Amino acid sequence: MTAINPLAYASQQLDSFVAACVEFVDIPSISTLSEYRPAMREAAEWLYEYLDRAGLQNVQILPTGGQPIVFGERLDAPGAPTILVYGHYDVQPIDPLDEWLSPPFNAQVRGDYLYGRGVSDMKGQCLAVIEAIRAWLQTDGLPVNVKVLIEGEEEIESPNLAPFLEQHRDKLGCDLVLNCDSGILRSDLPSLVYGLRGMTYYELWVYGPKHDLHSGMFGGSIDNPAHVLCEWIAGMHDQDGRVTLAGFYDGVRVLSDAERRALSRLPTTDAEWLKITGSPRLFGEKGFTTVERIGARPTLEVDGIVSGFIGEGAKTVLPAKAMAKISMRLVPDQDDVRMEQLLRAYLKERAQDTIRWELVSLANSPAVLLNRDAPGMAAARSALQETFGVEPVFTLMGGSVPVVGMLKDLLGVDSVLMGFGLPDDNVHAPNERLHLPTIQRGIQAFIRFFEIVSRE
Amino acid sequence: MTAINPLAYASQQLDSFVAACVEFVDIPSISTLSEYRPAMREAAEWLYEYLDRAGLQNVQILPTGGQPIVFGERLDAPGAPTILVYGHYDVQPIDPLDEWLSPPFNAQVRGDYLYGRGVSDMKGQCLAVIEAIRAWLQTDGLPVNVKVLIEGEEEIESPNLAPFLEQHRDKLGCDLVLNCDSGILRSDLPSLVYGLRGMTYYELWVYGPKHDLHSGMFGGSIDNPAHVLCEWIAGMHDQDGRVTLAGFYDGVRVLSDAERRALSRLPTTDAEWLKITGSPRLFGEKGFTTVERIGARPTLEVDGIVSGFIGEGAKTVLPAKAMAKISMRLVPDQDDVRMEQLLRAYLKERAQDTIRWELVSLANSPAVLLNRDAPGMAAARSALQETFGVEPVFTLMGGSVPVVGMLKDLLGVDSVLMGFGLPDDNVHAPNERLHLPTIQRGIQAFIRFFEIVSRE
Repeated sequence: MTAINPLAYASQQLDSFVAACVEFVDIPSISTLSEYRPAMREAAEWLYEYLDRAGLQNVQILPTGGQPIVFGERLDAPGAPTILVYGHYDVQPIDPLDEWLSPPFNAQVRGDYLYGRGVSDMKGQCLAVIEAIRAWLQTDGLPVNVKVLIEGEEEIESPNLAPFLEQHRDKLGCDLVLNCDSGILRSDLPSLVYGLRGMTYYELWVYGPKHDLHSGMFGGSIDNPAHVLCEWIAGMHDQDGRVTLAGFYDGVRVLSDAERRALSRLPTTDAEWLKITGSPRLFGEKGFTTVERIGARPTLEVDGIVSGFIGEGAKTVLPAKAMAKISMRLVPDQDDVRMEQLLRAYLKERAQDTIRWELVSLANSPAVLLNRDAPGMAAARSALQETFGVEPVFTLMGGSVPVVGMLKDLLGVDSVLMGFGLPDDNVHAPNERLHLPTIQRGIQAFIRFFEIVSRE
Repeated sequence: MTAINPLAYASQQLDSFVAACVEFVDIPSISTLSEYRPAMREAAEWLYEYLDRAGLQNVQILPTGGQPIVFGERLDAPGAPTILVYGHYDVQPIDPLDEWLSPPFNAQVRGDYLYGRGVSDMKGQCLAVIEAIRAWLQTDGLPVNVKVLIEGEEEIESPNLAPFLEQHRDKLGCDLVLNCDSGILRSDLPSLVYGLRGMTYYELWVYGPKHDLHSGMFGGSIDNPAHVLCEWIAGMHDQDGRVTLAGFYDGVRVLSDAERRALSRLPTTDAEWLKITGSPRLFGEKGFTTVERIGARPTLEVDGIVSGFIGEGAKTVLPAKAMAKISMRLVPDQDDVRMEQLLRAYLKERAQDTIRWELVSLANSPAVLLNRDAPGMAAARSALQETFGVEPVFTLMGGSVPVVGMLKDLLGVDSVLMGFGLPDDNVHAPNERLHLPTIQRGIQAFIRFFEIVSRE
């Protein structure tokens, strides 16, 4: 027993926590771009050292079919539950680079925020939960058993995680997963996620002439792949914002009146949403609120599109090809695997023989619905309530965390999604940031969580 | 008087002509990209030397508001007509670079072709006409007066040419313009252009959120600029390939039956067109043939489009903005200036307040119709007939040569469009090339033209 408790200890360590975040963020661990492979290794090795110094044991960098997984554990609490902490050390790409106010891999504190790629999603969150473990280990001793698993492929849909979980099933045995790849609604309002959208992601290619042609000499005589791609994309939504793919809404869980009422009480306002996005006006599927649209309804979005000449000036070409990146966000109980069939059917129906086309599937994962009364949820709720002084609300999350379903399927355990990102953290966008006062509360909440869950 | 005539002289000089083409092509004079500005100057200086060595007099590099114009003259034939030779030394950008089989600015002979950016459009053509002048000067003396004007901004729609022509009106006085920025239908079939499409070019921007957003957190709640842009583009054509902009076809000259019959006898076949383009099937405005579609009918084409994430992998973003480059090819007597109004009206009608948009006009020039019986046409016809042994046919050109209208307006002179590009030269595309046997015949035809026109 020391004279100081873990909450006080963590408060004293805030500067060193921020310094560690800066070091970790400055390693450009972008998993989707092969040129960053050395940085992926560097990030894993940095984490290895960090876990080791935090007092975790049996720390290892474990190989997978792709990026390695960093593991550590501390099993000093016989009889207490074992918590598997999940996180990821990979980050999103940084373009458009010219919109960053400070370099994405040179983290900077400005005001209450730390800026840098991956600081909120989720290097800062990973370090926050490790900081909570360290606070216990440096003071009263950890009241639960923990295993920490930090992967490097979350941003590319974790293609090697399932085989890894199967291979290491025994090593990873646990009672509960604490997944901190999550957020709360507002810095003064804690929240817990009970539903996650799934995701599918495709590249759609349309091919026309064998190379770019002079639009004067040839324009009007052959089909333009950019026109065809635009027509297809334009047809994928109707005027009410509904997706037109036949069968797209099959299986979509209907919200109960009670659930809609609960969601309507969430503090997310349209005014706030406009401010965060900077969009001129909100828009979405008719008949649903913003909160419902982003949590309880499926979507289809163009993530990117490119064709022809996109440089400076007036080059006149009839493009040889056009490509769009298209993702769908799915809700329970849509069938993620079937989505590709629906999209193919839509395209086949429209495809004319003036072009050729190709659809490449890059990712798919189902939506997840968590039991609000499941083990661990009560502990998380209490931890948040004690830390923020406010009863947390339950929310549906628009993003996808495929690992939640994977851990349920392969290890048979439920996840608690408790993290401290904020809606205006600019994740996946320029000027990603972490709100330091909130992550500090997050560390406190994790400390409390470990104690409360040990009594369950 | 020498023992050799100019035709024979030019034949002996073919190797040095090709060597000069290689030197000229290897200067990367891309006018639309500011980083190539030094190369523009280098190309002008190279031409200065070349004109001087060819025997032209009063050779000068004249400043404009943009790229300089290279000028030279030879006025030794009192009483004979004065021909203003027009050309341009600037070239198109080179992307997509990875589709070039040899570097675009390292010209290479392969088989009967010389490959490199600008070799057909139109560095090779410029040097061919200068070669014809040189052949006369080195043998019997030039039977006409010539003034040579080679500009550096044709590929960006000659924004500084009109003021230059006004400023130098006296210096440029002439009876006829020989514009060799043109081509023939087949290597064994000479042709003369009597109509040119005009062109307008725009950038259309659609803006949504203030920066790229996470498509999971925000997807479904705000409008996606890429969707809006695709919807607008999709709506610009109907199923019959007609442009839907209200008023777009106003003023379009109706082809007479006689003209349609003449065009139907042109040797351009759909099979050949498919082969050149590599397109799976031809497509265009219903009710018109391929030849009519590319020469006598206006078009609207997307030259490029870009939005969101277009790199490798599956980055999920809701893009902040989307941009398309859109060009229209116009025919007599459409009003090129009015086209922007039509496009704006179309966009205004569709624009919803969930996005912001902007239309930027980059270029516009009217279509041109030349008199088939105009001065110079007969000389060109005879020169082609004598060189190729075949009666040339009259054609409509899909591309735009705004300078033709400009020279008519400002100097009051008609142009003869005689050049020797071929439809499969890949102009404005990767692997641009020049057919050496055809350009050799072109030199011979230019030599004959100068002699025949001197007798008119």
